Amino acid sequence: MIGLDKAALAGLGLPAIRAHIRSGAYAGDTMGVADGHVQANLVVLPKAQAFEFLVFCQRNPQPCPLLDVTLPGSPVPQLLAPQADLRTDVPRYRVFRRGELVDEPTDILGYWRDDLVAILLGCSATFDNALRNARIPLPFLARQAVPPVYRTSIACRPAGPFHGPVVVTMRPVPRQLVVKVVQLSARFPLAHGGPVQVGYPEQIGVDLQRPIHGSFEPLAADEVPMFWACGVTPQAVAMACQPEWMITHAPAHMFLADPHYEEHAAV
Amino acid sequence: MIGLDKAALAGLGLPAIRAHIRSGAYAGDTMGVADGHVQANLVVLPKAQAFEFLVFCQRNPQPCPLLDVTLPGSPVPQLLAPQADLRTDVPRYRVFRRGELVDEPTDILGYWRDDLVAILLGCSATFDNALRNARIPLPFLARQAVPPVYRTSIACRPAGPFHGPVVVTMRPVPRQLVVKVVQLSARFPLAHGGPVQVGYPEQIGVDLQRPIHGSFEPLAADEVPMFWACGVTPQAVAMACQPEWMITHAPAHMFLADPHYEEHAAV
Repeated sequence: MIGLDKAALAGLGLPAIRAHIRSGAYAGDTMGVADGHVQANLVVLPKAQAFEFLVFCQRNPQPCPLLDVTLPGSPVPQLLAPQADLRTDVPRYRVFRRGELVDEPTDILGYWRDDLVAILLGCSATFDNALRNARIPLPFLARQAVPPVYRTSIACRPAGPFHGPVVVTMRPVPRQLVVKVVQLSARFPLAHGGPVQVGYPEQIGVDLQRPIHGSFEPLAADEVPMFWACGVTPQAVAMACQPEWMITHAPAHMFLADPHYEEHAAV
Repeated sequence: MIGLDKAALAGLGLPAIRAHIRSGAYAGDTMGVADGHVQANLVVLPKAQAFEFLVFCQRNPQPCPLLDVTLPGSPVPQLLAPQADLRTDVPRYRVFRRGELVDEPTDILGYWRDDLVAILLGCSATFDNALRNARIPLPFLARQAVPPVYRTSIACRPAGPFHGPVVVTMRPVPRQLVVKVVQLSARFPLAHGGPVQVGYPEQIGVDLQRPIHGSFEPLAADEVPMFWACGVTPQAVAMACQPEWMITHAPAHMFLADPHYEEHAAV
């Protein structure tokens, strides 16, 4: 049961997929997995830093839309999945100490403490469901890949010790579908909402050839690069402000939540 | 300059109105004041309780949509009005000690402490602007009154020490405009969004004759009572869980923020 690949999850329901993730049998990315479900980014911090981090999220709702917050010591996301355990139900984690990545485990049972708070943030993989159902081409899903992720020159609004750049994902979109894709993604502010930039990567300090995660495939002549705020932003924040301790999901390895994406539509 | 009535504010811009409120010259309600501007409810708490209260808000986004949060000791709402001071710029405050209302001052300079955090929550007076511009009749505004406010039988999701009932406002709406009013208010989730109940007060434990604030006027034969979550909810929470210390705005005496209400539309 160890080392399932993404294809092995096709057709399984969320309880079965979550069980494979919990057991460690599936530790891959979640792009296109659990069709229709909300996906969420994870940040785990000691209670001592949690108030300032929530203020940081409130000030930066595009990269950090708050979906669920646990009280100290509880790994159960009451709103998104009351049966889940955030110590085991993310395929792969990242452990940061003073801004340095020190571990990428498939569970964090050994790191858990009674003063830790888990925060789930919205993710663009949620609106990918809506794009796919609206028959918008998403070539990275067809390639079983993940969209490229870039650090931008846009600064988050700081809050206490927390500061850093907005991180974005890029999706290439055929020119005649750009407006439609703005409309579709804007319905989901809890999944980063509408794009932060359309068509001009240099305006936000992005060199398309140099993603920090995922791989860049050259755009077709009629494709426009569209950029959305990304839940990897807190990892850039961890590196920028070096808190004593922070755990996140590994990029593209999200928590799969109970709600259907339509339940998170603003209108 | 002491004791201006609401009519004296007509035609003034926000800076002049805020100056009258700051000086104490205007201490009345803000329903229909500062045409077009976002209005916000206030909660002030010691830092020690602020994390749990933010979690309470995150779990109850309809009554408690988070608009702005200050760090300990700062009375300046960075996002909503960087020139304002929340110790003086609300027309009237309420000070609660262990759940008991002990003062209703026009400023809180004497109560301010370095460990206090100020939290601004969305308010239905914001979408009243949109309703008015869409020519929806709002009889309470024509009477220079405030909509009636009721405690409901709906419980908020608790978080740590914070629990209590959802409080609502009621607006009577002509039957043929109900759908339009749902659509208009739903555009503003940061101002409580769509209604929590339409037409059946008893379903949420409301006796129309017994508001906890404002006055009830009998409905016309073709009018339907519509109920929206209300930013007075934290005051009911203060009474239910009796924190050592909490300051709020007085009902209907809101903070007038810089943004136009359209800036807060979800779509």
